[in-house]
This record gives sequence, structure tokens and C-alpha cells, in this order.
Amino acid sequence: MSNCIVAQSGGPTSVINATVAGVVKANQMNPIYEHVYGGLNGIEGILQERFVDLTDMTEYENLVLRQTPSSALGSCRYKLKRDNVEDFEKLMKIMEKYDIETLFYTGGNDSMDTVAALSEYAAKNGITNRRFVGCPKTVDNDLMHTDHCPGFASAAKFIATTALQTWLDLNVYPASRKEVFILETMGRDAGWLAASACLSGKVDIVILPEDSFDKELFLKRVRECIEQKSKCYVVVSEGARYADGTYISAGESKNDLFGHAVLGGAGEALKSMILEADAAPRAKVQDLSSAQRSHASEQSLVDVTESFRLGMSAHMRSADKAFTGKMVGVKRREGEEYEVDYFAIDADQVANFVKGFPKEWILPEYAGITDEAYAYLRPLIQGSPVLIYEDGLPAYVEPYYMR
Amino acid sequence: MSNCIVAQSGGPTSVINATVAGVVKANQMNPIYEHVYGGLNGIEGILQERFVDLTDMTEYENLVLRQTPSSALGSCRYKLKRDNVEDFEKLMKIMEKYDIETLFYTGGNDSMDTVAALSEYAAKNGITNRRFVGCPKTVDNDLMHTDHCPGFASAAKFIATTALQTWLDLNVYPASRKEVFILETMGRDAGWLAASACLSGKVDIVILPEDSFDKELFLKRVRECIEQKSKCYVVVSEGARYADGTYISAGESKNDLFGHAVLGGAGEALKSMILEADAAPRAKVQDLSSAQRSHASEQSLVDVTESFRLGMSAHMRSADKAFTGKMVGVKRREGEEYEVDYFAIDADQVANFVKGFPKEWILPEYAGITDEAYAYLRPLIQGSPVLIYEDGLPAYVEPYYMR
Repeated sequence: MSNCIVAQSGGPTSVINATVAGVVKANQMNPIYEHVYGGLNGIEGILQERFVDLTDMTEYENLVLRQTPSSALGSCRYKLKRDNVEDFEKLMKIMEKYDIETLFYTGGNDSMDTVAALSEYAAKNGITNRRFVGCPKTVDNDLMHTDHCPGFASAAKFIATTALQTWLDLNVYPASRKEVFILETMGRDAGWLAASACLSGKVDIVILPEDSFDKELFLKRVRECIEQKSKCYVVVSEGARYADGTYISAGESKNDLFGHAVLGGAGEALKSMILEADAAPRAKVQDLSSAQRSHASEQSLVDVTESFRLGMSAHMRSADKAFTGKMVGVKRREGEEYEVDYFAIDADQVANFVKGFPKEWILPEYAGITDEAYAYLRPLIQGSPVLIYEDGLPAYVEPYYMR
Repeated sequence: MSNCIVAQSGGPTSVINATVAGVVKANQMNPIYEHVYGGLNGIEGILQERFVDLTDMTEYENLVLRQTPSSALGSCRYKLKRDNVEDFEKLMKIMEKYDIETLFYTGGNDSMDTVAALSEYAAKNGITNRRFVGCPKTVDNDLMHTDHCPGFASAAKFIATTALQTWLDLNVYPASRKEVFILETMGRDAGWLAASACLSGKVDIVILPEDSFDKELFLKRVRECIEQKSKCYVVVSEGARYADGTYISAGESKNDLFGHAVLGGAGEALKSMILEADAAPRAKVQDLSSAQRSHASEQSLVDVTESFRLGMSAHMRSADKAFTGKMVGVKRREGEEYEVDYFAIDADQVANFVKGFPKEWILPEYAGITDEAYAYLRPLIQGSPVLIYEDGLPAYVEPYYMR
């Protein structure tokens, strides 16, 4: 009997480990693989033969793993380049050496490209006993074809909850204190996270990357809010930009290894605009930074359940020897009640595309999002898992890459 | 039968409303007052006769109120000055007009000074039927005499949880990525909040206002961490300062209405030092900002329970007609198990003092805190209340000042 390996890539989410837990649990329920290995630090660690054996994980560890944020197996930003044949050959050899038939890879766009590239390579070289399956995860929710991405909903829930709480915080002082609160969220190219703050029902102004930023319009809206009710609650995506594509945080941006802009400072940029134009005498910025993607103590039950089942579904589908080069996604059923089915799609249809927040869901003048958007978002944040605590803090597995 | 009024002052906490809920519930259980009024926006609103009637609050609203962060009655930063006799006279007249015998006032140092000043004024002027009782609340945990302050423990729990989660986030990439994460907490003059991040067990360097900041020592410690394990987790209090008292965030600080420095930017200051000295190639800052004091979705059960009982205790003690000018506090029993009793102390013994984090609990070279500090902190963050959710988000009362 052959083995499988599961590995994680890209930025953390608060439910990314639930997919790993799902693969492990599925194999315990139907052991189609002799060993379920965990590859440490994604493809980078697999190329260094850094594995752990997850096959016999206890039920308790599986439960704790599901509630542990960030990649318990470690992550990487290493991208397999199609012209780097050496890496492909090396990986196939390592898989042969350890008799690994299937690699499950969780990640975003880049990881789905890795899955597609590996299965293409295997097909071209007549390698039929090495298979590659992608599982989506990204707080950015920007993958094509899947209705949404595991990790997004828990981040959305944390953002909406924080918006509600900090809106209450903003409003406690009398009307004589005029103040703007600016919540900055992640979302380089997609406004899903910023938009989800609207679930709080308290956002006055929301600026998404899919919209174009107009400084005068923004300041007009701030002035109106301050005049009407002395407080103004603004949410901005790190990727918010002017019509010409310039980030409003320009000047603070750098590029990462993949050439993606590393952003930050959109909130501070808005604050400066407000104070310079005297649209309000006070403005405060909260950048949710790393906490928004790793705040697993408020997971959405829908999210963590789907992430777990998505791992199980990937494992179950891989019993089919022809199953490779696929990503397993989530499809929402038609109808009033929220229901999902799991499905598979070619990973190359997902790789390197971005699904933005639909422009038709954005209200004019940064006033928020449409009812259609709420109908999409609302079901995703429902429910709270019962968490296991140890001595006052949530119990988390010790990262496998540190053991 | 006379009435009482409860009002809130100063910065929000995530359990401040539980004290109000406690006063209301105690009066339902033993109606020594005909009406329990809520004063809107603290003393400022009371002077404008802005009240709500909380007497017959339903059990459901009481439960939701306990889990609602920020001041549901609104707050103020208005300080009664002892030489402003007009305010004192006006307040006594308003209390007479509405037959209000007792004012319960929740807040920090400044609010305890208000309680002391009002009861002094009444005594000097032979006013025996107006009484003033303080209830402590502050995330800063810096009030004297009380073992700790309601609001602190929930903020501490959120900070420790976030430290644990963002530490996991920091560590997912391989050792080739060298990086420092800097978590900035509130704490202008007291390091309690920053110190509580150590409960995560993951903090490499913690810088408190009670310690003196030495840039070279700090950079040495960062370099050692990066060399040993390629990552370094730093926690800094907004009030961290050099030996000469200069804030490390100097340049970014302003003064508020009370002459307190409004801080921010200690984390950014450390990041600049690290990058300029090339102690690490990357550094990221997370400033927990408003969320740390209003993140009520992770209240400590100990904290919210004590805050509620403290309100009840204040109400119950006020049946004694001589009870005025007092603050009700929390006393920890001697012994292994965590147990508290409630007690009363003259508010003027609390007003305008600050209880810092004990210097003898600080380890040298920013290495953390002592076992004694852990023994103090650990019991405070225990337990999680069962929260009421509505449509995916925690249920909160609509602020009374907006109704």
C-alpha cells in the first residue's frame, strides 16, 4: 500500500489545519494509504525530505489541530517554476523513495499553480503513480470557481465582530467629541475582507480595491457623517487604490519574492487626508494585521467544518487513481437555506486568477454593500465551535515543524 | 422611596457594563431604590439631566448587557474640578429634583477622584442624603488597593491569546526567513497589559514602562533571538520609556484634555531601530489599539463575573446610609486556590494614584516576568462565558445613549 503526504503553503488562516485534520481522519476511517505524512514547510521542506507521520493522530490531537491557527506543518513561499526541471525531478524521486502516491497541497493561487504544474509534469513524463490534489485556503477569498475559500469566513467573522466592538468603543463619548475610526483589513487585490466588516451593520464608509478611490468624494462623505452624528466609522482594504491603480498607501509599499506588492498604511494614509483637510479633528487607525488571519478563537463553525470536510473529500476522491491536478472546492446550492456540496475542478483553472468582490455588489459613494452581498456573506459566519481551553487560553498543537 | 443612578466614565472595557447589570439585578433582588436610573455620558450627561430608567430590565437584556463591550450608557472625560462649585451645586440640585440618593460611578483614577470630591462636598455642606460610590474599571489595572480592576483580565486574555496566535503566524516560514514581530499594547504608565502577553509562553522580549529602555541592550537581545531561532517575538507597552523618562514613541505623542500623554507608535519606533541597526531584515508591528479593550467576545469568565458581583456588592452596601465616598474593590484571599472577597475603601485613597507593575516581577534584559507575576495573572483569565449570538455575531445591547 502506498502513502500520501499533506502540506501547506502561503499565508496562514485560522482553519487551515482543519483540512489537514480532515485528510488524516478520512484515512483513519478508510485507510487507503498506509501512512499519512505531513510535509514540513510546504514544497520547500518536502524537497528537503522533512516529514512527520500523522497517520495515527489521536482524536484529541485532531480536535485541537482543527482549532489551531496558522500552518501547523509550517508554510513556504517557494514557488515551483515550470522551467526548473531539477525541482520536479527531485520531488518525483522523493515521492518514489517514500512511496508517496498523492500529495495534498493546501494554499491559494500559487499553490494551485504548483498542483497544476506537478500533474502536468507527471503526465508529460508518463508518471502515472504520483498524484497532486489542491485544497483551497486563503483569507482573501479570491480563488475562482469555489464559492468561497476556507479561512475567509473566520477572518470575516473576526473583522465584523471587531468592527461592531470598536464602533461601540468609538461612540461612547458625547457628540462634542468628533472622531473618525478607520479599520484597515487585508486584501491586496480583493475586497472580500473589508466588505465583510459591513456585517456589523455599523460601517459608514467602506473602500474596496475593486472600487476606485476618489479623495474628494471620500472627504465629502466623512464631513457628512461627522456633521450628522459626530462620529464616522471607515473600513479600508490594504489594497484600496485610485482610478489609475496607484495604491492609496503608495510610498509604503514594497514587493515580496513573487513580485506581489506588500501593502500597509492605507488607514494611516486616510487619517492624514482627514486631518490635513480638517474633515474631522480626530482620527484613529486600527490595522488588524496578522491577528485577522490567525484569530482562531472566534472561528466560524461553518468555516472550520467545511475546511475539515474539504480535506476529507480530497482524501476520499483520491481513491480514484485518475484523480490528479484537481482542486476540491465548495459549491453553494440554489435556494433559501445555506447548503454546500464539494466538487473538484482542474487546478489550472484556478491557478493565477483572482476573483474580486463583484463590482455590482458595491454601493456608490463608499456607502457599503448590496443585499446580494449580505446574502452571500451572512451564512458563512454562522456558529461557533466549542473550543478546548488549557489554563485559560485556547489549546493549540505544538507546531510539527518545531518538534 | 428614593432612587439611585449608575453612570460610566473613562475609556471602555469589555466588562464595564457587567457592573451596571449587577447594580440593576441587585435592586431587582432587593429593591432598596424605587428606580435605578442610568446616567448617560457620565457626569457630563447627568449635569444635562440625560437619564434612562433601567429598573425593570429583563433578564435577557441583563445577560446581553454583561457581554456588551464599551460603555452602554456612554462615557465622558469631563472632570469635576474641586474649585468649580457651580457643577457641584447643579449636580446636588439634579439629584434632589429626581430624588436620587446614591450615584454609582464606574471608572478609573479620575472617576474615583470625582466620587471623593462629591462626597467631600456633600459632607462639608451638611448634605447627608446624597451618596457617592465608586466601582473600579480599567484595562490598565493601575488602581491602588484593589487586587485588580474589572476589564483588565479580559483585555489580558485577548492579548495573551493574540500573542499565541500571532506567534504561530510568525513562525510558519522556514528559518531562512528571519523576522521580528512586535505586538504593541496599551498601558500609558503601567505595564500590566504588556506583561500579560507573557501568559502565551511565547514572548522573547517584553518592554514595560516600569523598566527603563536601553536601545543597545534591546538590539543585542533581538540579534541573539534571530541568531538562535530566526524569529523574535517582542511585546511593548505604548508607555515604554528610556531611563530619562522619554517615551520611545516620542515625537508621536500628544496630550489629551487631562494632560495625559496620548501615545502610539512604540512598536513602529522599535521596528525602525531594528531595521536601521540591521538586527533583523524584517519586522512587523501589530498595534492592538481599541480592540484590546473592547474585544468582549473573549471575556474572561472570572472578570465578567467579578465585574457583575462588584456592581451587586456596591448596591448591597449602599443600604447602609453612611456608605459614601467609597470604592468597592476586590481582595484576593491568601492560599493556593484563587478566591476573592469584595471590600470597600475610601475613594480618595485610590484617586490620582497609579499602581505600576511591580519592578521585582520583571526579569532582567526584557526576558519576561517572574513566577510570582504568573501566579498573579494566571487565575484572572480563566473561563469563558457562554455568549449569546444573533445571526453569527455576538448580541449586544443598543447603546442607551442612542435610543
